[in-house]
Amino acid sequence: MEIKNLFQLNPEVVFLNHGSFGACPKPVMEEYLTWQRKMEFQPVEFLGRNHASLLKTSREKLSEFLQASPDDLVYVSNATTALNIIAWSIDLKPGDEVLGTNLEYGAMDRMWELICLHKGAKYIKVQIDLPIKSEELFVEAFMRQVNGRTKVIFASMITSSTALYLPLYKLCRIANSQGIISVIDGAHVPGQFPVQLDISPFDFFAGNCHKWMFAPKGTAFLYAKKNVQHLIKPLIISWGKEIDTLNNSDFINDMEYLGTRDISGFLTVPLCVSFLDEYLNQNARAQIYDLLIYAKDGMELILKTPKIVDSLERCIQMYAHQLPENVDGKMLKQKLYDDFKIEIPVSNQNGKQFIRISLQIYNIRSEVDFFLNKLEYLVSKCLVNSK
Amino acid sequence: MEIKNLFQLNPEVVFLNHGSFGACPKPVMEEYLTWQRKMEFQPVEFLGRNHASLLKTSREKLSEFLQASPDDLVYVSNATTALNIIAWSIDLKPGDEVLGTNLEYGAMDRMWELICLHKGAKYIKVQIDLPIKSEELFVEAFMRQVNGRTKVIFASMITSSTALYLPLYKLCRIANSQGIISVIDGAHVPGQFPVQLDISPFDFFAGNCHKWMFAPKGTAFLYAKKNVQHLIKPLIISWGKEIDTLNNSDFINDMEYLGTRDISGFLTVPLCVSFLDEYLNQNARAQIYDLLIYAKDGMELILKTPKIVDSLERCIQMYAHQLPENVDGKMLKQKLYDDFKIEIPVSNQNGKQFIRISLQIYNIRSEVDFFLNKLEYLVSKCLVNSK
Repeated sequence: MEIKNLFQLNPEVVFLNHGSFGACPKPVMEEYLTWQRKMEFQPVEFLGRNHASLLKTSREKLSEFLQASPDDLVYVSNATTALNIIAWSIDLKPGDEVLGTNLEYGAMDRMWELICLHKGAKYIKVQIDLPIKSEELFVEAFMRQVNGRTKVIFASMITSSTALYLPLYKLCRIANSQGIISVIDGAHVPGQFPVQLDISPFDFFAGNCHKWMFAPKGTAFLYAKKNVQHLIKPLIISWGKEIDTLNNSDFINDMEYLGTRDISGFLTVPLCVSFLDEYLNQNARAQIYDLLIYAKDGMELILKTPKIVDSLERCIQMYAHQLPENVDGKMLKQKLYDDFKIEIPVSNQNGKQFIRISLQIYNIRSEVDFFLNKLEYLVSKCLVNSK
Repeated sequence: MEIKNLFQLNPEVVFLNHGSFGACPKPVMEEYLTWQRKMEFQPVEFLGRNHASLLKTSREKLSEFLQASPDDLVYVSNATTALNIIAWSIDLKPGDEVLGTNLEYGAMDRMWELICLHKGAKYIKVQIDLPIKSEELFVEAFMRQVNGRTKVIFASMITSSTALYLPLYKLCRIANSQGIISVIDGAHVPGQFPVQLDISPFDFFAGNCHKWMFAPKGTAFLYAKKNVQHLIKPLIISWGKEIDTLNNSDFINDMEYLGTRDISGFLTVPLCVSFLDEYLNQNARAQIYDLLIYAKDGMELILKTPKIVDSLERCIQMYAHQLPENVDGKMLKQKLYDDFKIEIPVSNQNGKQFIRISLQIYNIRSEVDFFLNKLEYLVSKCLVNSK
């Protein structure tokens, strides 16, 4: 109960949707405000003379956390922005193919489809059957579609609708060896699952800090390995690399100086890392995981639909279960909120509906019990055409 | 003195550079924080279910202020972003020409040059001789360069380095009649000078709210007339127009839903408009203008360089004067700050150096006196090669 007080969430809501937008703890919000006050105290010093050094200090702390070189990271507003920068930058030619999975976030499917359409390339969704039985089968599904036209492999490390941790390492090592660029949507990764970006086989990685790292909304990063940084072109052209800063990096200067904006969120990242160290220790993570298993078992029992995950090792702080086909997922979601103030998302993918629970340190067992109880109560009442 | 207390600016700094980043008053910052707290209280409601209606309410108030239809405006982070969206969106073909002036903001020159290079088009800077003697001469300078290849006319309504209000109406009416798209960089306009966008001849207009409207940093808008909105393509592709909102506008849905970000700044705009109404009334504006004339006369007397403006009617809250050629502008700027805590910018354009004073309601005559005094003292000490 004390931990929930660290957050600003409405105490009357059973908040089981950390995944969509995260939640920012009070100490981080205070830090955010402190930076904003400093910015307003002397805007020209803050956003002019000190801009580069302020961001650099923050980036260095983030880079330790991600085990990445600080020069290979730039701050952006969200993973969507990072992935757009990457996707527009890669020189796709007519006929080139981008392979994604059938488990990607819908907005990013839309992005690849529109960008590929624009460039005459093709976005192909590799069919991943759930549950994923092994990394070998996952890699094989991809490799069946790889050919001489394959330019990019794109996948979420943790999927959105289905909350699955996908086994990407072997796949991306093979991609690397074949000269295929790997682009990883890590929107849900930082703070939920550790990464070591520099020794990873990933060329590009997009991650949010505002989801599982507790940062203010609009705090995210784009990671690009040095050998692919020259590919990246900014979508917003400003002074860019012509600016005179302490950064001896065209990549950073082109990407971080985009006209006047509030960079305070980016500057809270070092505190977010400390907050994670303090509150998301091994013990806390084990407790969350136990509660996640408990929630999963309950959802399985109530919903009786096939599991989409074999071993829970592929879920970390989120778990998604398929709704029965005769359930009106939209109505269910709405009634859970309107009648019981339970905030939990339902989404559609490949003709199936998934209800996804997110668990964070502020969630407690009685909330999961309350949710399971109301889910059981409502699931038989929210049937298709029952309005 | 009381008015300065409404702001968070360092009281030890003589702040004569409102123009670069603006300054946000305390009541607006409190409103900003209030929105941020609401966002953190129930993030899914705020950024999910209520996202469109929150932005719509704010946009409506901004549209009244700008005399624009609310459906023709979208919020963006800054004018740089708005202009990039416009410039990338316009379908420039090889050989097409974009006419700008030789008085544009350097980052936007760079933007047009790179985008034109990318598309095989040409960015041409029309030579505007200063002072501008008449609107006719200004229009003529442009029209001499207009030909069948001219696709876009681009100009700042208030220039950055030279702080001049350019006479754009007649020019853009002619452009309109010839099927040439007009793109106006209004970065310094909203709050400093009234506009009536709907009855203006401008196709596209980019304006900041964080400069002269007192909004938090990162608050700006893109205006597009209905007949050119179909040209606009988002740089960041997300759910866009596929999202289910109350907005019956592809333009708004494509442009305002860009992944998770802090929209609180945008939501403070109605309060910014009220703040302007209250504090920037006719009387206050007249006082600022008087002080600007006073500053101008002083700078002229000290610097003895030719005036770049004939009548001060072409300046509003900013005034720029050319530095003598033998003055090291960079050193002068630095000494003004380091030795006397006077924050005022010096910039270079067309081989000339300009020192630009900005005046806002929080500035008082003794600050201008102090500046003039120190300018006189330093100008003979900061000579080229005198380091």
